[in-house]
Amino acid sequence: MDKKQPVKSAEVSKAAREALERRGVTLMDIAEIVYEMQYTYNEGLTMEHCLDSVDQVLCKREMQYALLVGIELDELAEKKMLSQPLQQIIETDEGLFGIDETIALGAVLTYGSIGVTTYGHLDKHKVGIINQLDTKTANGVHTFLDDLVGAIAAAASSRLAHRIRDMEEKGMKLSDEKTIC
Amino acid sequence: MDKKQPVKSAEVSKAAREALERRGVTLMDIAEIVYEMQYTYNEGLTMEHCLDSVDQVLCKREMQYALLVGIELDELAEKKMLSQPLQQIIETDEGLFGIDETIALGAVLTYGSIGVTTYGHLDKHKVGIINQLDTKTANGVHTFLDDLVGAIAAAASSRLAHRIRDMEEKGMKLSDEKTIC
Amino acid sequence: MDKKQPVKSAEVSKAAREALERRGVTLMDIAEIVYEMQYTYNEGLTMEHCLDSVDQVLCKREMQYALLVGIELDELAEKKMLSQPLQQIIETDEGLFGIDETIALGAVLTYGSIGVTTYGHLDKHKVGIINQLDTKTANGVHTFLDDLVGAIAAAASSRLAHRIRDMEEKGMKLSDEKTIC
Amino acid sequence: MDKKQPVKSAEVSKAAREALERRGVTLMDIAEIVYEMQYTYNEGLTMEHCLDSVDQVLCKREMQYALLVGIELDELAEKKMLSQPLQQIIETDEGLFGIDETIALGAVLTYGSIGVTTYGHLDKHKVGIINQLDTKTANGVHTFLDDLVGAIAAAASSRLAHRIRDMEEKGMKLSDEKTIC
Repeated sequence: MDKKQPVKSAEVSKAAREALERRGVTLMDIAEIVYEMQYTYNEGLTMEHCLDSVDQVLCKREMQYALLVGIELDELAEKKMLSQPLQQIIETDEGLFGIDETIALGAVLTYGSIGVTTYGHLDKHKVGIINQLDTKTANGVHTFLDDLVGAIAAAASSRLAHRIRDMEEKGMKLSDEKTIC
Repeated sequence: MDKKQPVKSAEVSKAAREALERRGVTLMDIAEIVYEMQYTYNEGLTMEHCLDSVDQVLCKREMQYALLVGIELDELAEKKMLSQPLQQIIETDEGLFGIDETIALGAVLTYGSIGVTTYGHLDKHKVGIINQLDTKTANGVHTFLDDLVGAIAAAASSRLAHRIRDMEEKGMKLSDEKTIC
Repeated sequence: MDKKQPVKSAEVSKAAREALERRGVTLMDIAEIVYEMQYTYNEGLTMEHCLDSVDQVLCKREMQYALLVGIELDELAEKKMLSQPLQQIIETDEGLFGIDETIALGAVLTYGSIGVTTYGHLDKHKVGIINQLDTKTANGVHTFLDDLVGAIAAAASSRLAHRIRDMEEKGMKLSDEKTIC
Repeated sequence: MDKKQPVKSAEVSKAAREALERRGVTLMDIAEIVYEMQYTYNEGLTMEHCLDSVDQVLCKREMQYALLVGIELDELAEKKMLSQPLQQIIETDEGLFGIDETIALGAVLTYGSIGVTTYGHLDKHKVGIINQLDTKTANGVHTFLDDLVGAIAAAASSRLAHRIRDMEEKGMKLSDEKTIC
């Protein structure tokens, strides 16, 4: 690769989605969290709406870069390739670390501050796949990934809340058609 | 007052504490939330520790200014003194508003990003006094106050987590002596 | 107005744009700052592109709410209608206040963290209309407005940077056609 | 090292300071930026005050963790040890990346939002050592480090602004005595 040329966006997008998949997280896993968070507020919300919203959130550069950095650090920690003391800090998911929350928060805030509440709730209560990531620590390092999954779910929830309002005001329903990046 | 002179810090601090009290929130109410959040992680944590941490958080200028602005807007909305449509947005605690979360988040982040999780949890689950503020809407506007109380509790919890670690490493316990601004 | 009904988005949008205009800031003033920030990086950038980007940024709820809250506080301070000490803090544009930066930053971050650099630069160097707001203090309070104008310009610059990259990758140029909310 | 035990704070602190030094940045380099930013506002400000403030900022866990993560990523990129496309993104200091700004911003905000302006200015104008880091790209990757140095300088400037006000109100001057973590 030529050092001067920026990496193509399509390549970044593909790498971010592959990283999620490689770490055992499907878009459906995240859509289930979104549904769980939003269905009480929105009659007629379907899993398709949630899956589409997760898909859209993954089209954002800020989210893709957050995933690439966070998952890279998790994987390097698994392979014991980080220098000390960072290796141990990430491996043990040190409670005062905070860089995982900082990166996740940066991605959440691209859909506005209303997502912070949902992100905080998910990070504390380890809903759905987040719980599995958290408890299967024996089998891998997911210090960043659980926060990132929470960030995607919170962003997708915020996005839905904004869009549902837009649709209501136009007297329309959320469309079932899939959007593309 | 002379326009050129900055307001004395002691005056800002006093006004912020008085505003909380005027709106029916005691430091003890917030300390109870902190205790609820932290006691499972910290054997030997007392209400005095929590109350002291709340007190310290209220010494920070960023928190004091957040309280003064948020409570002012709540009170102006109660008196119907804001212009439209802001009056209605704040009066009805519009779900997509977000400026209340933004201001609260700014204050939480002065104790690092680890407080975001606790803030999000409190804002969603309306623990303790936050619930009373949320449900007594008929009697007043608390659009900013519930977020601000969550922010103080989250900041005080973060502060305790950092200090307890510091003490542990020194082989000491959290002191019972009260600190001052 | 019915207390239960949320304010219509079109009404919020209209009010935010009117507030800017009422305070003497035109979209063209902000577009000029955007052009100043971006033209060296982008051959072929026109004032129309910049004006359109400013227009799009003003379609975002987070930005509209930030404008409504900040300008309300500036105007209330001008009319001496805030309680003390907040009245004096805002009137004198207290340097340690920070709530103006917090609200502006929340709006900037919806276009990602790359806008923070531009926002910081604009807030420090008071480019274009921001300087006029800052120096005509004798004639009004603009404690929040200068930060908000910087936030709009920074967000519009970030938005352009993202879109120009998207267009380049498609082998296209930035369109001159105006977009709508 | 025992996986269960958290890394000692003293070890984290030492590693963060060593990382800065290893990358060719001295505390004096950063203190010079702080002095440059603050001396016009503060008669009697000395290099000792600035150096002490930098030293204090480096005592904060949030800043130490930011340094460890950012410098690790810079060094891994130098050694071509990151996976693609992250390797190329960091190596070429991709303009739309933003995770460097996000991490730096998280550290700045622990001293309040007033530091954002200074951080943005430094990141844009590449003052002092930041410029040398930026131009010696041929000799190394400093994608995160220039932002981190800007964050330390901005945080130290905010800290000084707060302390100088505190001292003024007590009728005292900034002390020359060095503080310790």
